[in-house]
Order: sequence, then C-alpha cells, then structure tokens
Amino acid sequence: GFAQLDVQRAARTGDPEVVYGEGKTPAQIVSALRALHAAHPDRAVLATRLAPAALARLAEELPAAWLDEAGRLAILGTPPAPVGTVAVVGAGTADLPVLREVAATVGVFGAGCDEVVDVGVAGLHRLLAQRDRIAGADAVVAVAGMEAALPSVLGGLIGVPLIAVPTSVGYGWHLNGLTAWLAMLNSCAPGVLTVNVDNGFSAGVAAARIARRTARP
Amino acid sequence: GFAQLDVQRAARTGDPEVVYGEGKTPAQIVSALRALHAAHPDRAVLATRLAPAALARLAEELPAAWLDEAGRLAILGTPPAPVGTVAVVGAGTADLPVLREVAATVGVFGAGCDEVVDVGVAGLHRLLAQRDRIAGADAVVAVAGMEAALPSVLGGLIGVPLIAVPTSVGYGWHLNGLTAWLAMLNSCAPGVLTVNVDNGFSAGVAAARIARRTARP
Amino acid sequence: GFAQLDVQRAARTGDPEVVYGEGKTPAQIVSALRALHAAHPDRAVLATRLAPAALARLAEELPAAWLDEAGRLAILGTPPAPVGTVAVVGAGTADLPVLREVAATVGVFGAGCDEVVDVGVAGLHRLLAQRDRIAGADAVVAVAGMEAALPSVLGGLIGVPLIAVPTSVGYGWHLNGLTAWLAMLNSCAPGVLTVNVDNGFSAGVAAARIARRTARP
Amino acid sequence: GFAQLDVQRAARTGDPEVVYGEGKTPAQIVSALRALHAAHPDRAVLATRLAPAALARLAEELPAAWLDEAGRLAILGTPPAPVGTVAVVGAGTADLPVLREVAATVGVFGAGCDEVVDVGVAGLHRLLAQRDRIAGADAVVAVAGMEAALPSVLGGLIGVPLIAVPTSVGYGWHLNGLTAWLAMLNSCAPGVLTVNVDNGFSAGVAAARIARRTARP
Amino acid sequence: GFAQLDVQRAARTGDPEVVYGEGKTPAQIVSALRALHAAHPDRAVLATRLAPAALARLAEELPAAWLDEAGRLAILGTPPAPVGTVAVVGAGTADLPVLREVAATVGVFGAGCDEVVDVGVAGLHRLLAQRDRIAGADAVVAVAGMEAALPSVLGGLIGVPLIAVPTSVGYGWHLNGLTAWLAMLNSCAPGVLTVNVDNGFSAGVAAARIARRTARP
Amino acid sequence: GFAQLDVQRAARTGDPEVVYGEGKTPAQIVSALRALHAAHPDRAVLATRLAPAALARLAEELPAAWLDEAGRLAILGTPPAPVGTVAVVGAGTADLPVLREVAATVGVFGAGCDEVVDVGVAGLHRLLAQRDRIAGADAVVAVAGMEAALPSVLGGLIGVPLIAVPTSVGYGWHLNGLTAWLAMLNSCAPGVLTVNVDNGFSAGVAAARIARRTARP
Amino acid sequence: GFAQLDVQRAARTGDPEVVYGEGKTPAQIVSALRALHAAHPDRAVLATRLAPAALARLAEELPAAWLDEAGRLAILGTPPAPVGTVAVVGAGTADLPVLREVAATVGVFGAGCDEVVDVGVAGLHRLLAQRDRIAGADAVVAVAGMEAALPSVLGGLIGVPLIAVPTSVGYGWHLNGLTAWLAMLNSCAPGVLTVNVDNGFSAGVAAARIARRTARP
Amino acid sequence: GFAQLDVQRAARTGDPEVVYGEGKTPAQIVSALRALHAAHPDRAVLATRLAPAALARLAEELPAAWLDEAGRLAILGTPPAPVGTVAVVGAGTADLPVLREVAATVGVFGAGCDEVVDVGVAGLHRLLAQRDRIAGADAVVAVAGMEAALPSVLGGLIGVPLIAVPTSVGYGWHLNGLTAWLAMLNSCAPGVLTVNVDNGFSAGVAAARIARRTARP
Ligand SMILES: Nc1ncnc2c1ncn2[C@@H]1O[C@H](COP(=O)(O)O)[C@@H](O)[C@H]1O
Ligand SMILES: Nc1ncnc2c1ncn2[C@@H]1O[C@H](COP(=O)(O)O)[C@@H](O)[C@H]1O
Ligand SMILES: Nc1ncnc2c1ncn2[C@@H]1O[C@H](COP(=O)(O)O)[C@@H](O)[C@H]1O
Ligand SMILES: Nc1ncnc2c1ncn2[C@@H]1O[C@H](COP(=O)(O)O)[C@@H](O)[C@H]1O
Ligand SMILES: [Mg+2]
Ligand SMILES: [Mg+2]
Ligand SMILES: [Mg+2]
Ligand SMILES: [Mg+2]
Ligand SMILES: [Mg+2]
Ligand SMILES: [Mg+2]
Ligand SMILES: [Mg+2]
Ligand SMILES: [Mg+2]
Repeated sequence: GFAQLDVQRAARTGDPEVVYGEGKTPAQIVSALRALHAAHPDRAVLATRLAPAALARLAEELPAAWLDEAGRLAILGTPPAPVGTVAVVGAGTADLPVLREVAATVGVFGAGCDEVVDVGVAGLHRLLAQRDRIAGADAVVAVAGMEAALPSVLGGLIGVPLIAVPTSVGYGWHLNGLTAWLAMLNSCAPGVLTVNVDNGFSAGVAAARIARRTARP
Repeated sequence: GFAQLDVQRAARTGDPEVVYGEGKTPAQIVSALRALHAAHPDRAVLATRLAPAALARLAEELPAAWLDEAGRLAILGTPPAPVGTVAVVGAGTADLPVLREVAATVGVFGAGCDEVVDVGVAGLHRLLAQRDRIAGADAVVAVAGMEAALPSVLGGLIGVPLIAVPTSVGYGWHLNGLTAWLAMLNSCAPGVLTVNVDNGFSAGVAAARIARRTARP
Repeated sequence: GFAQLDVQRAARTGDPEVVYGEGKTPAQIVSALRALHAAHPDRAVLATRLAPAALARLAEELPAAWLDEAGRLAILGTPPAPVGTVAVVGAGTADLPVLREVAATVGVFGAGCDEVVDVGVAGLHRLLAQRDRIAGADAVVAVAGMEAALPSVLGGLIGVPLIAVPTSVGYGWHLNGLTAWLAMLNSCAPGVLTVNVDNGFSAGVAAARIARRTARP
Repeated sequence: GFAQLDVQRAARTGDPEVVYGEGKTPAQIVSALRALHAAHPDRAVLATRLAPAALARLAEELPAAWLDEAGRLAILGTPPAPVGTVAVVGAGTADLPVLREVAATVGVFGAGCDEVVDVGVAGLHRLLAQRDRIAGADAVVAVAGMEAALPSVLGGLIGVPLIAVPTSVGYGWHLNGLTAWLAMLNSCAPGVLTVNVDNGFSAGVAAARIARRTARP
Repeated sequence: GFAQLDVQRAARTGDPEVVYGEGKTPAQIVSALRALHAAHPDRAVLATRLAPAALARLAEELPAAWLDEAGRLAILGTPPAPVGTVAVVGAGTADLPVLREVAATVGVFGAGCDEVVDVGVAGLHRLLAQRDRIAGADAVVAVAGMEAALPSVLGGLIGVPLIAVPTSVGYGWHLNGLTAWLAMLNSCAPGVLTVNVDNGFSAGVAAARIARRTARP
Repeated sequence: GFAQLDVQRAARTGDPEVVYGEGKTPAQIVSALRALHAAHPDRAVLATRLAPAALARLAEELPAAWLDEAGRLAILGTPPAPVGTVAVVGAGTADLPVLREVAATVGVFGAGCDEVVDVGVAGLHRLLAQRDRIAGADAVVAVAGMEAALPSVLGGLIGVPLIAVPTSVGYGWHLNGLTAWLAMLNSCAPGVLTVNVDNGFSAGVAAARIARRTARP
Repeated sequence: GFAQLDVQRAARTGDPEVVYGEGKTPAQIVSALRALHAAHPDRAVLATRLAPAALARLAEELPAAWLDEAGRLAILGTPPAPVGTVAVVGAGTADLPVLREVAATVGVFGAGCDEVVDVGVAGLHRLLAQRDRIAGADAVVAVAGMEAALPSVLGGLIGVPLIAVPTSVGYGWHLNGLTAWLAMLNSCAPGVLTVNVDNGFSAGVAAARIARRTARP
Repeated sequence: GFAQLDVQRAARTGDPEVVYGEGKTPAQIVSALRALHAAHPDRAVLATRLAPAALARLAEELPAAWLDEAGRLAILGTPPAPVGTVAVVGAGTADLPVLREVAATVGVFGAGCDEVVDVGVAGLHRLLAQRDRIAGADAVVAVAGMEAALPSVLGGLIGVPLIAVPTSVGYGWHLNGLTAWLAMLNSCAPGVLTVNVDNGFSAGVAAARIARRTARP
C-alpha cells in the first residue's frame, strides 16, 4: 500500500498512530482509518486535516465514524474513559478549527476536555471571567493567532502547565502565523511551551499525556 | 562642518531639528546642540542616543543642559508650556530608556507627559488599576518588548489614539525587536499605530502633535 | 452562530465592531452585517474585504447598504456627521482599493475625508500642487506601495499627524509590500506612524479618532 | 530602584520571580537576589545568565549562595524537597550550560533532576543505553543544538511528556540556533513541545510543574 | 525549437543531458525526449518532473518508454549495465517521489540501486535493522523531510560517502523544506553532503558517479 | 605573497585592478598599492576601505599618495584627464563616506565628478534647486540610506543614466541597508540601476565607463 | 478612468510612459495603449506583461500593434531609428521571456538590439565564441536565473557598461530569483549593475539611454 | 573533563574524531589533541579552527605537531599513505584558509591532495588552463565565496564527483556566505554537492572517502 502504518507505536510510546489527511485522497484516508481501527479494535483512532470531500466519503463508507466539520477530523471507535482535564482556550472564532483539533486529540489520547472559546485579549473581561475554571485544569492549551497575546496574559494568571498553539489566522501580513509563533516563544510569562503553527494535534498529544499522568489516582 | 543642521525645519513643519547622537563624537554632539540652540534661542532643543562619554562632555561644556542618563538624552533651553497630555505606558523596567526618549520628546515638542511604568501583561492587575488614568490622556504611547502584548490589551480597553513602540528588549531569540514589531502590526485591536524598533523619538513627535492639536482650546 | 460579534466594543472604546469579509461566505457576511446594524441602529456599520460575490449578495439582500466596488466594502446605516477632516493621499491608481478602505472607515468612524489621488513622487509636481490642501487637514493618511517614498516627502512638507499605509502593490520582487513597510518604518521624516500592509481599516480608525478629537469645539 | 521585583508572583502562579542576569551589573544582581531572598525567606531563589564578574561578586557578598559556573547561575536558600523527577538529556558537551540552567531551575521549582549528558545521535548506542532510565522520569527535557535530531529520536522511544530546548551551538551557519529551533518544531515525533533558543529556564519551569503534579501522592 | 538540447554534454562530462519536465507542455516533453534519444541511441535517456498529462502523452506517443508515476519520470532506451551500488534510503512514504527520482537517475547514469524505504528515526529499530545492508553500498543517498534527522543518525553509523536530499515534506510551517535543508547542512555527523530541496536528480548524478568509479575493477 | 594582483585586468577590460583594504593589514595594503603602481606606472591606482591605521601607514611610507579620510581611500599616481562628467548626489551627511568612494573611483577610472551633497527628500527644495545641474551630467549616481527615496524622486525629474547606491545608514531596524536596497530595486521610476549596499566602488566603475563613452568626441 | 496615464513623462525625462499589463483587464490594456498612442502619435508605445487573453484582445482591436507572445508584449507605432547597439545576452531558453522584454524596450526607447541567446556557463564554449560580438556593443544586458554566473564571467571578459537582470527561473528552492539577485549583487567582477528580478523593462530603459548617448555622433 | 572525545568513532565509521578549536581555550585544545593522539597512536589526528594563541601554545607544548597558520590548524602524528587524489580548487586568495582546511583534512583522512589556487571566474583563462589537471583527480572540491560561479563553470567542464564549499568571503552585503551557498545549491551544472558555509572539514572528509574508495586497487 501507499502508506505503511506504524502499528507498533502504541506499544512503544503508549499512544497509537493517527491518519494525517493532507495530501491523501479520500480513498486512501478511508482505507488508512479502517486499517488503523483493525489494528486497535478496542480504542478510538483519529484522522485529521480532512477536506470536505474526505469527510463526505467517510460519512458514506464508515458511518460509525464521528465527524467534526469545523475541526476537519474524524474519530472511529470508542475513546478511552477520560483521566484528568485539559482546558482548551481559544482567542477568536477563526481559531476554532485548531481548537477542535486539540480537543479531539485530547479525547482520543485519553483525557477530558473543557473548551473555553472566544476569550481573546481585545475584550479582556471575557478571559478574566473564566480564570478560575481554567486554573482548575490539569493542563491548559491556549490557541491564538495574530499577535497571540493570550498565552502571555494567561501565563501571568495561572501556574498550570501551559501549551500555546500559534495559528495562521490574521489580517494582512502576518507571515502565515510566524508572528504568533515568535510571540509565543518570546512570552514574558515563564514556562510557556509551544508547537508548530496550527499544530493542534501535537499540542493535544502532549496535553493529554500531562493530564493523564497528573490525575492518576 | 560635518553635519548640516536643517534649521528651517521648524518653519516648514512647526517643529525644530534634533541631534541624533549615535555615530557622532562627543565634540560633534556638543557643537551641534549649541548650534541648534543658537538657531532656536526661544525654545528647547533635544539630543538623543547619547553614550556616557557624550553625556559627560555635555555636563562639562553645556552646564545649562538638562541630562537624563536612563533616557540617554539632553535638553537645552526651556520647553514650551505643555498643551494636552500624552500617557506613556511601559511594560517592563528594561523598556525604560525608550520610554524616557518618548517622554523627553513629548515635552520638547510641546505636550505634557504622564509616565506609567512597569505595567506589563504578566501582572495584569497593575495595568487594570491604571486604566482610567490612561484613558484620560489625549494620546497614548505604549512601549513594550518581547511579545509586546501590552498595546493589544490597552487597545481593547480605551479609544484614545494609540501609538505602540516595539523595543529590542528580550531573552534569547527575539530578533532584535522584530517579534515585538510584528506583534504590534498584527494587533487584534483596531487603530494601533506603530514606529520602528526603539524609535521613541518618532513616537514622541507624533504623540505630541496629536495631543497639542487635540487639546487646543 | 459561527462568529460572535463584539457588540459591547462601542461602549468600551467609543467605536463599534465591523465585519471583516475575508474568509467568510456571502451568507455569513449578510447575517453579520444585519446583526451589527441591529445592535447599532442609530449609526452606520461597515463590512470590508468583500469579494464580488459578497457584494452581489449584499446588493440583493440589503438594498439599503451603500456599496463601493473599488474599495471592496459596504456601509449600512447613516454615518455620523463628520467632525474634523482626514486627507487621504494615494501614490498610484493601483493603491486605490486601500485608499477607499481608509476613506470609508474614516466616514463610518465619524470624520470627514478629502481624497487626493495619484500624486506619487515619480511626478513630483502633482504632489507639490496639493501641499496646502493636505496641510490643512486634521490628520493625513498616505497610501503607497513599491518603494513608498511618498510619506517621506510629505513628512518633510507638513507638520500634521501623518499615518503611512504600505500597500502590496509593486512590480516583481517587492515581497508583498514588505519593501513599502520597511521604507515607511525607516522614513527620514520624524513622526511617521504606520500600520500593517494594506490595512486601510486600522489607519482609518486611528485617523478618525485623531481628527474627531482635534476638531472638537 | 532600577528593577521592580514581582514579589506577588508566587501567590499568583505558585512559583517565585527569579533574577535574569544579562544586562545587569554585578551590584544590581547582588541586590536583586538579596531582595528576592528577603521576600521568600523559606524557599530557594535563583539568578541566571551570570557573567564571571557577577559570579565573583556573589561569591564575595553572598557566601551562602550556591554557584554553578558551567551553568552561569546562583541559588540562594534551600530548595524545596523534590517531588517527581525530570530527566534532562543533553546532546553534546557544548550544550552543558543550557542543560545546567534547566537542572537548576527544576530544583528551585521543586522537582528532582536526573542529568543524562553527551548522548547525541551521532553515537546512537549512548542514547539507546539510557532509554529505560529516561522513560522512567515524570517529564523529559532534551537539550540539543546543530540539527537537533535528539528529541525526534527520543520522541519515538518514549511516551513521557517531552520538552525540547534548542541551543545556539553549531559550526558555521546555524543561524544562532534557528536550525535547531525549526527542527524541533517540525519533529516527526508527535507531542514534542519547545521553548526559545537557549531558554533552559522556561523549559525547567514547565518541566518542574509537570513533574510536581504528576508525582503528587 | 523552444529548447536547445545540449547534446555534447556526454562528450564533455561523460553523462548525457536530461529533460526537466516542469514548465514544459506534454508535446514539448515528447519531442525533447525523442530528440535526446536520437542523439544517444545506444543509452537510456531520462525525463523528470512529469505531470500526469505528460505521462499520459508519453504512454501514447512513446510506448517504448518506461514510466514511473510515483517518481513522475520516464526512461527511454536501455540503461547501462550497473557498476557499483547506491543505497537510496527514505525516511517516510511521503518522500517516495524524490526517492524514486534518485533511483531512476542512478540507473540511467550507470550504477545499481538498492531502495530502503520508510526507515525514519521516529521508529529507530527499522533503520538499525538495515544498517549493514546500507553500509555495504558504494554510496548512500538519504532522503528526508520535516526535521530530517535521518542523515545524522546514518552518518554516525557508517563511513560510506553520504548524500542527503532534503524534501519539501512536512506538516505546517516547514518553510518548503528549508528546515530539512538547514538540518542537513548542520549535521553533527562529519562528511554529510547535500543538494537543493527535492533535487533527487542532482543527488542521483553525483551518487552514480561515485559508485561507478568506486567499483571499477 | 598573500594576494596575487590581477595585473592583466586593464588589458582585458580597460581598467586596472584596485586594492580592497578590508581584512588586510596596513603592511599588506602598502605593498599591494606599491605593486599595483609598479604595474601601471602611467596611471593612478586606488585603495579603498582603509582603516585609520592603514591611512597612517600610507601617509608615512607612500607620501606621494593622495589620502581621503572621510572616504577611507588612497590614490597613487596621476588620474587620467577626465572625459565626461558624473554627478554624485548624496542624501545625507552620513552617506558621505560612500559618496566619496564613488567620486574617487570615478576619477581614477577616467571621468570627471560633480558632488552634490545633503539633498535628501526630507527637505525637497534643496534637491529641486540642483535639478538642472544634475540633469546636465553624463551619468548620475544617487547615494542614500534609510528609506532611500532620493533615486525615485530624481528618476522622475531626469532622463540621464542613473545608478543608485544603497547605504547602511539608518536609525534602528534598517537591516544594514536592506531597506534602502529593496527600495531602490522597487523604484517607481523606470531605469534605476543598483549595486550592493555601500558599494560605491562598483557604482563608480560603471558610471565612469558610461560617462567616458557617452562623452567621447 | 481607472488609470491616469503620465503623458508628460516624455517631456520630463525624454521617454514616454508605458502600459504595465499585470493586474489589468484586456479592455483596460487596449484602452490604455490606445490613449498612450494618441498622446505620442509620432513614436512607438509599449505594453508589457500581457496575459494570452490580453494579447488576443489586442490582436483583434488594435491590428496595427506588433505582438510578441514569448515576450508577452505589444508595440504600437513606429520605433525611433536605432542609435547605438545593446547586446542582450541570455543564459538559457527559459530566460527568453525576460530577454525579449529587454529587447523590445531597447527598441522602443531608441537603440538597436543584438540578441545572443542560450550561452549559459554550463557550456562555456558557447559564450567564449560570442565574446567579441558582445564586446563591440555600446551596452550589455545579461539575463540569467538559477545561480546567475553569466554576468560575472562576462564582466571579466569585457569593459562595456553591463546590466545584469536576475530571472525567477530555477529548479526547486531558488527563492523566486533571490538567488540570482544576490549573486549579481555580489559579483566578483567590478561595475556590474542590476535591477529587480525579471525586470527586463527597467534594464532596457537604462541600456537604451546609455547606448543612445554613447553612440551620439 | 570538559569534553568527552568520541574515541570509538574510527571503529564505527573508519575515521577518527577531530578537535574543533572554536570556543575552546588553548589549554583545552592541547589536552584534547594529546588525548586523541594517545587513543590513535598509529595515525595522524587533526585540530581545526585554531586562534593564533592556540597555535602558539601548541608550538610550545606539542613541538611534534605540524602547524598551518593560514589554515588555522594542526596535525599530530603521521598521516596515512595517500590513496587516490583530491583536487582542491580555490577561487580567490581570501578563500585560502578554507582551502587549507580541506587540504589538511583530506591528508589526515587518507587521500592525496592537489591544490589549485586563485582560479576564480573573473579571469577565466586561469581556470581553463588547469582543466585537464583537475579532470584527472578522483574527487574535486571547489572553494568559492561572493557569487560562487566557480563550481558551475567547473561542473560544465568535468564529470568527476564535485563538492562545492561556500565561503563567507565577500564585499558588503553577502549575508555571511548565504549568497555563495544559495548559488551552489542552484547550480545549473548537475551533480554539484555542497556543505555548510566555510565547512572545509566536512568537505574534506567526504572527498577523502570518495577518493580512497575510487582508487582502491
Ligand atoms: N480591512 C481590514 N483589515 C484589517 N482588519 C480589519 C479589516 N476590517 C476589519 N478588520 C478587523 O476585523 C475585525 C472583525 O473581524 P471578524 O470578527 O473576523 O469579522 C474588526 O474588529 C477589525 O478589528
Ligand atoms: N535564563 C532565562 N532565560 C529566559 N528568561 C529568563 C531566564 N531567567 C529568568 N528569566 C525571566 O526573566 C524574568 C526576570 O527578568 P528581570 O526582571 O529582567 O530580572 C523572570 O521572571 C523570568 O521570566
Ligand atoms: N570598496 C569596494 N567595495 C567593493 N569591492 C571593492 C571595493 N574596492 C575594491 N573592490 C574589489 O576588490 C577587488 C580587489 O580585492 P583584493 O584582491 O581582495 O584586494 C577589486 O578588483 C574590486 O573588484
Ligand atoms: N572545521 C570544522 N568545521 C566544522 N566541523 C568541524 C570542524 N572541525 C571539526 N569539526 C567537527 O567537530 C567535532 C569535534 O567537535 P568538539 O567535540 O566540539 O571538539 C568533530 O567530530 C567534527 O565533526
Ligand atoms: Mg470574535
Ligand atoms: Mg518587571
Ligand atoms: Mg499613475
Ligand atoms: Mg561530544
Ligand atoms: Mg511512515
Ligand atoms: Mg542632513
Ligand atoms: Mg539550454
Ligand atoms: Mg585574486
């Protein structure tokens, strides 16, 4: 076949391989997700970055799959019972697709998820109102584009492990998210961790691992 | 002489030429400031970006000059009576030299100045406590380095004309202020204006012009 | 709904939220503009960056809206009576769309607008002929692409608050407006303020605020 | 004084402020560390990025401080009893200063630290021999310069939360660590988190927070 | 005609000209390949970077040509008997097109080829299992995208001449292969040679020359 | 010796080799200039980019040489009788060193030179006053830093061959002259030619060639 | 109308305005060329960067125009009798469109043109065979993409004024011509002048001016 | 000790570790070279990038070492009998330090070396005169800075494996060798391999491996 799935990954690192949809045909995505599900029948598997055509094909051929159009993703199989909670905090409505990618990944990788949307710093009161809810999570993921001030403000308000995801959202010359990325890496709040632009998946993997371990009884 | 002063500038634009100290010897700076003062005997003139040696020479040869070591600048002659007020808001103590350059320029160019220091977003309560004071000014200059979240937060809280000055302050790879600069140009708050990195002088000129005109009786 | 409008913005900063059309469907734009108008029945609201399809849909569904094809924008409701004047100065005909975005924003945000088009420095006499007209405004916005020499020449001729908008207009390798942007930030004229590439909206907001306050009786 | 210490930070986020030595005189560093210690008498405080002159001055004036020359840092007061373990893994001997900054920060912020040095991928057997030791930690920090292959190899071998710190170590044109930084953000292993170039402090803060919470009984 | 083929190249450098398909119409490609074949009737000639339409046209008009869809290339005529062996090692399945371009070029330029696919460092055991097979070749070409850790790991395991080909494969902000390119040029393993992003052809030419000469009896 | 002079260059291209002083010791510069003079006894030879120590040594050991401290250069031997005229136009006093390098090169390469200094666009009247003088030259070299608007304004006023030299002069973030360089390459005036940042020598060579040929009787 | 033609340009600089086709509709191009022709009935006018649709429309509506498909341009009216000669030298067949833009501009701006095509340095003998022909011109324009070695080799062989035009031609990561541009600005041959990437028009204007003046009797 | 030498490298890859002098004290270099020699008593070992102080200390403490000041390196012990020949071709005298690093590495790694200096393309005849000598080698290393046209010209003349080393040599804005680097990666000659800027060591390792194997009897 075109792609060789790394079906031993779960044994090695505790978490299964996923399907990255960009650059794959709908048919390839369906068959990859089916194969992954067959290799891990007892736990949910995930496909990300799905174009509308791929989502449509999945709806037809794998009706058991749960689809999220805004998040451009699909889940097949039952997610594990959640251990620990990740607060996923988004700055604007345009950041929603990345926020959903974080949330779905967190669920598939075994943690619970609390979505806090549209709390960007241009209307600060919205964020301050949610401070305690966010501070109660086991890990926080902050999703923001443009100048990405959100994680710096958050990082001054809480001491929970904090991952910042820069998005390629912006007006005009934002360099496809480079601005947000540089901002997050230069945050004046100590301990802000980051991932690549729009990489909600990688942030979700890391956050779930932290939350699962933090909350283990 | 080495530098030809543009002594007609005040007639053309309303504001006099200044002395930019970088790349000039102490002797050149003294003589340039003296010449500028002679051309504008009835109003204060300014020299910026002065190295310690230049400040020392000025103290000796032009004892009438007012010197600001933190701001690396000198003023000779009496500033105009201030018309209008500029709030100059700084994120951290390391931004102080640029903040002082703004403040001195504002004074020499004829407006009053209210300095609000060390109110960076990592400790948000400090900024919120000063909100009304800042909102009462005729123009606001926000000085910040690193990820420069300050002007975005401010821009969501007030409707006063707002100029953001990126500084070259940061830990590690901040690209000499490029990060702050990009952040300011991509602010999610509408109407944020900006200048070059560390260019407190240009921000001060613009802010004074706005404040003077805004407040005219 | 998809986008949550920030309807309290006017209360917080004095100016209402607007609709940014890029990345939104015609249907989303129509409904956002309608909602904004409902929240601010007594003043004009604005939608920018409208593709031809969006303009066509607005013409059909909101016939009361005023449409500007060159400026790719729409206004719904009656703009406030203008207070003060902004001169909007454009270098070339290709800069027109951005110039119109400035002009429409200035009007919606409450100031009057004087458009001075096609006065780029390659034919200097055209600009010199308009010098006094421009110098009489309460704020000036200079719109230019390519090497963006216009604001530097203007900045040496007048003392009015001056905002420069770089455009992504150019032949060959102009880096999507980076050249114009760098030129404006390195202007040899003091006090030149700037915004992001093509961001006529943000420049218009700032200019209107300056003009309104300057001219208040 | 010059710098205003944020002495409420511990109350807000659970961890105290630290002293960043770059750009400060030895005298300023001594007085800042002393003030921080006075504000937190019952827990260790940290100063980083200390030049040899600053270390010498501290040795003289604060003999109770523990100094690490390779790590360019100082600790004053007794660190908390460690909760949980962070494995700090370094690629080459030139990465040692950053590795030590991670280790000291981890200790001051309350976790235990296991240093695994000189296990870069050019001699793979060295890393493979330590796999189980690293996999047993509560959090892992991988420090590497040049092409920074280490976190990718590690990320394929373990499922522990993993933070990668790019260093400015390299031969020739490595762009002051940009190469390592880009490599870490583009890791083929999922869940790799990162911080700014050479920012061992921020990685240490985050790792300690994860380990402390993970291991809480 | 549009393109003048350099038919003396084989006389000058020992290897014939090839057809680079990008930017050429299917008709131009067919005629160029035909002309090249006529000039070199006794040895295979190569066309690279063929779009699906070009491959289809070749299938019709030059049925004697051997086509490789994954590699986007065509070979016309009989390749020379292979002298020496090049191991072509690929990190992931998405690197396959470039890997095939290397392999076809190696064959046309007179060496044998051993393809080792999908042995990226995220699953290290796969690479270690092939170490001796790779070490037995006369030259090695390592093809990798993303953070491109493969050549560094390989370079520490073998002493065979090693050429690294960066690919433009990646998720998110990988800068069209710049990340892989920088990583290869900063490899901690000495003696790693490299070519432009995705340039499997140039790597194949060089590897075949090395293998042919190395193995000459 | 360390450097091999290309003494046949005059025969090949009509103009002799010169000594580039950067990175050479005073002793090396003296001996190179002496050797060049011996090879071309009947015409002037040039040394550029001389540090103060090199100028001092030349004053001592080659008293016949003509030295220009502001231009950091030396000329040994009699320049040719000038044929044609190059107008060398400088924006600001800080551009003087580059302007002088142009002028000296023009003279040594056989054309006459008319220096027009300090006519930057911030005080436009100064340039307009010199328009006819500049338009009368056989070639024009415009030297400018910062946003480098001068060549665009000039290019709209005259039709003489025009070479623009960007300088590394600027306040703050001007990217070592990149801003000026980009501006010149994106000039809205057609026919503006350019050279590398600060490369007055190369501009002088080209301008002298144009002027010499243009004016030949 | 949409575009205001600068019909006084010929009076000011000696050469008329031209039509730049990029971003204009076929109808706008036809009407602009017609207007330009009306303003300059006694000399040829030029339109560049024409898409196939624009060329087709011109063929229909202005049958008197001379069209060059490879060069993407049109000429309307009789060019001036040529004065002097420009050698236009191209490296490869893919550089042809830019070479033709140079040639057409040279003709319209009043000089003669000698096209020397496909003499790139990879087959050096081709260039050496044309050396004397090129050396006999009044000005030389060298057009090259990729690594752009051609102008450096030429610059060592001749002393004629030499303009280098970088093209955006290349395989893989050539940064849209940045590589060629940097190479030309760093040429080891003195006196190489350059223009923006693909800007054959600007090079043609400058070369024609040099050749016309050089050859004037 | 500070640095752990990788003394098993020869067993793994066939070639021993070397000492990289940059960033090490003279004392560290002496002791590292001594230790390396002790581990490999029967073959030469190498230290590169030695500052004058390090060379002086080596002369004193290890009088048996062979020192090359121009190449900034030292060799201790007897090099292997050379197998095969590497032609090392340099463009200008300023490239000499890198050329010598290549040559010394080639010798220590077991091949013979033929140095061909100062044959840059600005004086093409010099290179053409050496064509056959270079074509007779088993591998070629071309060392060049500025626009680095040399490898492209060479690559069109010979079919021997060719490694290009960009140097950081240039006048003005050459971006520390980036220009040369980009030029080499975009060479129009097929099969040009490259390494990092100034990395003569890595090129020497690769060339020696190719030559040794090519020539093996
Ligand atoms: N043309 C424009 N350029 C940049 N920003 C704009 C523009 N028009 C509107 N905006 C911003 O976009 C916001 C609305 O964005 P949205 O909520 O995505 O519709 C406004 O509050 C403005 O800050
Ligand atoms: N090594 C380090 N790298 C980056 N940031 C640091 C480092 N050490 C301390 N910091 C930050 O610097 C702040 C103190 O800076 P300052 O007030 O300038 O001394 C701390 O709150 C940390 O956020
Ligand atoms: N100021 C300058 N800027 C750039 N290149 C120069 C300059 N002066 C001389 N050159 C070049 O440097 C070469 C001599 O360099 P060198 O052999 O290193 O002394 C000359 O042939 C010129 O091409
Ligand atoms: N001139 C050089 N340029 C780049 N890398 C080098 C050079 N010389 C030695 N090296 C590398 O540096 C390593 C030794 O570095 P170190 O352990 O820091 O002394 C060697 O194994 C080589 O890979
Ligand atoms: Mg919103
Ligand atoms: Mg502070
Ligand atoms: Mg126009
Ligand atoms: Mg080591
Ligand atoms: Mg795979
Ligand atoms: Mg001046
Ligand atoms: Mg060809
Ligand atoms: Mg030489």
